[in-house]
Amino acid sequence: MRILILGGDGYLGWPTSMHFARAGHQVHAVDDYLRRRAHQEAGTDSLTPIGPSLPARADAFREVTGLEIVVTEGDLTDWSIVERLFREFEPEAVVHYGEMPSAPYSMIDREHAVFTQTNNVVNTLNVLYAMAELAPDAHLVKLGTMGEYGTPNIDIEEGYLDVEHNGRSDTLPFPKLPGSMYHLSKVHDSHNLHFACRIWGLRATDLNQGVVYGIETEETKLDERLLTRFDYDEVFGTALNRFCLQAVIGHPLTPYGKGGQTRGYLNIVDTIQCVELAVLNPADAGEFRVFNQFTEQFSVLELAELVRKAGAEVGLEVRIDHVDNPRVEAEEHYYNAVHTKLMDLGLKPHLLSETLIESMFETIGRYKDRVIPDHILPATRWRGVRERSPG
Amino acid sequence: MRILILGGDGYLGWPTSMHFARAGHQVHAVDDYLRRRAHQEAGTDSLTPIGPSLPARADAFREVTGLEIVVTEGDLTDWSIVERLFREFEPEAVVHYGEMPSAPYSMIDREHAVFTQTNNVVNTLNVLYAMAELAPDAHLVKLGTMGEYGTPNIDIEEGYLDVEHNGRSDTLPFPKLPGSMYHLSKVHDSHNLHFACRIWGLRATDLNQGVVYGIETEETKLDERLLTRFDYDEVFGTALNRFCLQAVIGHPLTPYGKGGQTRGYLNIVDTIQCVELAVLNPADAGEFRVFNQFTEQFSVLELAELVRKAGAEVGLEVRIDHVDNPRVEAEEHYYNAVHTKLMDLGLKPHLLSETLIESMFETIGRYKDRVIPDHILPATRWRGVRERSPG
Repeated sequence: MRILILGGDGYLGWPTSMHFARAGHQVHAVDDYLRRRAHQEAGTDSLTPIGPSLPARADAFREVTGLEIVVTEGDLTDWSIVERLFREFEPEAVVHYGEMPSAPYSMIDREHAVFTQTNNVVNTLNVLYAMAELAPDAHLVKLGTMGEYGTPNIDIEEGYLDVEHNGRSDTLPFPKLPGSMYHLSKVHDSHNLHFACRIWGLRATDLNQGVVYGIETEETKLDERLLTRFDYDEVFGTALNRFCLQAVIGHPLTPYGKGGQTRGYLNIVDTIQCVELAVLNPADAGEFRVFNQFTEQFSVLELAELVRKAGAEVGLEVRIDHVDNPRVEAEEHYYNAVHTKLMDLGLKPHLLSETLIESMFETIGRYKDRVIPDHILPATRWRGVRERSPG
Repeated sequence: MRILILGGDGYLGWPTSMHFARAGHQVHAVDDYLRRRAHQEAGTDSLTPIGPSLPARADAFREVTGLEIVVTEGDLTDWSIVERLFREFEPEAVVHYGEMPSAPYSMIDREHAVFTQTNNVVNTLNVLYAMAELAPDAHLVKLGTMGEYGTPNIDIEEGYLDVEHNGRSDTLPFPKLPGSMYHLSKVHDSHNLHFACRIWGLRATDLNQGVVYGIETEETKLDERLLTRFDYDEVFGTALNRFCLQAVIGHPLTPYGKGGQTRGYLNIVDTIQCVELAVLNPADAGEFRVFNQFTEQFSVLELAELVRKAGAEVGLEVRIDHVDNPRVEAEEHYYNAVHTKLMDLGLKPHLLSETLIESMFETIGRYKDRVIPDHILPATRWRGVRERSPG
């Protein structure tokens, strides 16, 4: 298949590109280095030393495997780039990771909020119009987030809710309670996608993904030049990855607030497996299909305890220091999200284990001289617009 | 009260500005003439001869009433303008009509879709940040649309739905099925507003308005220079207003498709009454309040029949010619939308009557030499992106 990977330079986009190329597909990866630039501005960086550019990574991949990943460096909000990609490559599947992916980044101030929403909404509209015009039978696999749902007091279904109301019934989009300007941008995207499927008959799968952890995939292990990025800073890092790094460098683990925040999690190798399952089993024409993409639920505190326990096994003394929660979110709440559709397609989960955490310790240990510790603690706060930008 | 009216040059914004000024409030009206420019590009115009600019209209209003409407000509997507407005005027209420308001306009092509969503989302984000920073106790009265809900097979509630699911319950945002890129922009806005109320404790009322009809308010009748605009073209015109004009000029009425599309409707004088009720009864701090703002439900065909009947009374021979539906929408469907919250605040509806239609005929007749007939029939189609913009 001809598979277009948007955001092919990212934590997930790069290993996904390599995986599809090794599986025998024609892969075209696109990126504009938004995340690299945001790191540069903030003075942070990936723990792992990744190739300097997408072409350099593709060159290394070719040397190691003999396989080709075609790359484009370009901004998906620029229609001329999107149009050329669709016209020339004629994708059969489009895997869309190509958005600004950080909740804290979007909450820095007005400018970052406007940028995140504009960037994400416009590049996804461009993709939808390109599909409608140039690739109406292609299948869009779009990365969304479980964070679109927030934490309602009912079970979270996969995209839709069967509603009975005043003696009538309908199946309607599941109500959304997103918790940041970034999560809102994904909700906007989901509504736009649903509409494009209804109106133009496009095929789309919205992957409401949980929090991804892990540092290695089959392909990143082939050669050091094929490593994927690993973020641990307050803007791009996520709970479990950050905790593992904190354990290795002797920094206390820092759950935000009480730590009762419960979310779905999955291993990076399962992200790739899920995306592959979605691509190989496309949505029907006109179908807006939604999968909840995670394998297990944990509270933040449960993860911290797991990391402490795994640390003790390998002689790391790990402390847990709760920090003031920079976000506005429920710290104790009901959470039960359905996630059976990907299992039904054949997903074989790699569940979280002490062994996995210990192997993450090992990999992180290899690069621990590269850690920049000043940006680990949260600085971006959800409240307090006024204090932060008085004019 | 100090009331900021965003979109103060529009069909509703201008009479709202005059009404609040006459009621003794300090009014500051803002507009960037998006709609006037869209008309110029398309070669269409308001039926009524409106003042050439917002300052000219405010001058005429001062001459007629002795009252002041302060005006700013500026683009709300420009933060420096929004910031200055909030810093200098210190509004207590913000009435936000300031968006690109047309579903067909947003469906012309990719560029118009991107413009509509970007313009509407960004200017509303700017307003929310300005409130959070500079006017945290002000009350935002935001014009949304009943079109956010679409036509679900259940009763439409006012913004929220009480859900029972698997033995648990919650009150959640009512699911949205918007029918155009424009309606989607309003759904995006609603999610952003709800978040700002939850996170920053802002006060907001989202007015999910039905289709507005009518041509005169108490203030527009004071002097011809105070008229509000009246659109009947395929891009900015709406069903009942267009039917009345068609009846007067001897053009067949043109329901789209079967004409069973049912929506909520209200008289322009009730729009002003509803907005005033919302402003005088503000939402609580942190409350995202949603009102369904209409007074009666009609199908398109019922309206056409009403206009035919009223025409017969005054000697107009009115024909009804169904045209191919340019939109993708259900032409026969269940529709029952709750609209009690504004009634509870004291709304006294001006229901649709033959007398009202006959008085519209009269006013339209006065300006019928100004009618540009070539842009009445629908040209913008929801399907067929490919045919329309092949490159």
